[in-house]
Amino acid sequence: MNSPSFMDHLRVVLVATRNPLNIGAAARAMSNFGCTHLRLVNPYDPAYREAVSAVGAAPVLANAEQFPTVAAAVADCTLVVGTTAAGRRELHHQLCTLESAARLILRRLARQPAGRAKKNRVALLFGSEKTGLSNDDLSHCHWLLRIPTRLEHRSMNLGQAVAVCLYELARDPKAAAKFAHALKTDTPATAGEIERFTAVLTEALSASGFLDRRTVADADQRIRRLVRRLHLPHRDADMWTGIMRQIVWKLNATESSKPSPRKKPAS
Amino acid sequence: MNSPSFMDHLRVVLVATRNPLNIGAAARAMSNFGCTHLRLVNPYDPAYREAVSAVGAAPVLANAEQFPTVAAAVADCTLVVGTTAAGRRELHHQLCTLESAARLILRRLARQPAGRAKKNRVALLFGSEKTGLSNDDLSHCHWLLRIPTRLEHRSMNLGQAVAVCLYELARDPKAAAKFAHALKTDTPATAGEIERFTAVLTEALSASGFLDRRTVADADQRIRRLVRRLHLPHRDADMWTGIMRQIVWKLNATESSKPSPRKKPAS
Repeated sequence: MNSPSFMDHLRVVLVATRNPLNIGAAARAMSNFGCTHLRLVNPYDPAYREAVSAVGAAPVLANAEQFPTVAAAVADCTLVVGTTAAGRRELHHQLCTLESAARLILRRLARQPAGRAKKNRVALLFGSEKTGLSNDDLSHCHWLLRIPTRLEHRSMNLGQAVAVCLYELARDPKAAAKFAHALKTDTPATAGEIERFTAVLTEALSASGFLDRRTVADADQRIRRLVRRLHLPHRDADMWTGIMRQIVWKLNATESSKPSPRKKPAS
Repeated sequence: MNSPSFMDHLRVVLVATRNPLNIGAAARAMSNFGCTHLRLVNPYDPAYREAVSAVGAAPVLANAEQFPTVAAAVADCTLVVGTTAAGRRELHHQLCTLESAARLILRRLARQPAGRAKKNRVALLFGSEKTGLSNDDLSHCHWLLRIPTRLEHRSMNLGQAVAVCLYELARDPKAAAKFAHALKTDTPATAGEIERFTAVLTEALSASGFLDRRTVADADQRIRRLVRRLHLPHRDADMWTGIMRQIVWKLNATESSKPSPRKKPAS
């Protein structure tokens, strides 16, 4: 996937982030998913631009913008969405899961006025590692989203939360359906190919003495069912038949070179 | 969301992880999404159990199992899935996106034999930070999945990759649809409520002198359209009408208490 153009209108806003490594991690996830506009509100440590965890994220960090307040950081956005673990605090906002939030955000990002008109920018806010977004931060949001973590362990690592949110925005459900189809439809072997393999396998079972030792009436049917349960793919059918043919050849060659054929042990 | 029981049959397998902090980060994401079974193949640093990044993940780390080989780590699993950035190497496996992979994995996890029969366990493999899974590691996999990152920056941070994969497994598309519906259907105000507000607003515009200053023929219609574009929700309609009524009262009170009414400035 190339960076989709709708990501150009998304702003990831990290509010009061404490650990510069987390800013680097967020920037890396942004770069992974094609989102390049990072905004920082009052980061605790201005050394974030050197964050070592930011493999490949140098351009995102270099272009990061710094703001003194949330209001200033979201001033040019038409939709402001806060992220929350929705823990103890009473929330005064509508809260939706990440998945439905992503659909609403994508709809807004897709609805861009033509020409030079003011663009529909969307801000996605993440709070500090310790306390998340404050009630004052949240008051700037139109609504909130929650990543569906366990109720017993809601709070995610900041960089991981950013990665999960951007993944949900970047994934393409249509592409997924296509791939799932491709995976399911690995062309299976034809009945003829399966039958050829079954025949050689039966020869091998016989030549190896495997069949002799069991007195089973419907041995052929049992072998046929056994092979069909394999779901042999078309592209491997000849290979398997060849392998078994070689085994049969070797079994027979060994048998005929022996001075006296080995007999089935008496049972 | 509580930890869904199907997660009990999932094994996250980290192969040759270098940085113990990444093991801690993976464990935290596992705990967030209700997956408790971590397996480690040859971690470089056995100090991982003390990983400081593992907020809330101590139980996962304490129960982590260590294995000398990939073969041993996946021996009891019926489906083994590798993760890859699908970069320079030629892959000999079928590759699908995370989203379709998750549907296939969930289907397998849901299909559990009754009683004490051997369970369908699924192993999800993650390679080392530097090189990912080796070709030898990959040969143990049934197929591979790829997180849909940008082609120009494919490789994700290990903990973030684990978080994104487990999020995709844990999210509940049905719950999402429900929430999206709830968000969209915030009950709008009735026409009557809107009209009541419009009437008081018009009074306020008039009392404030706003209407006097503009000579617009269809002022009433313009105000009506202006109010309808607000999408006033039902639960806030009375509040807005009350606010405006208070403003009208104050405007009139101020006006009548003045010795001489202020006139429209000549223009």
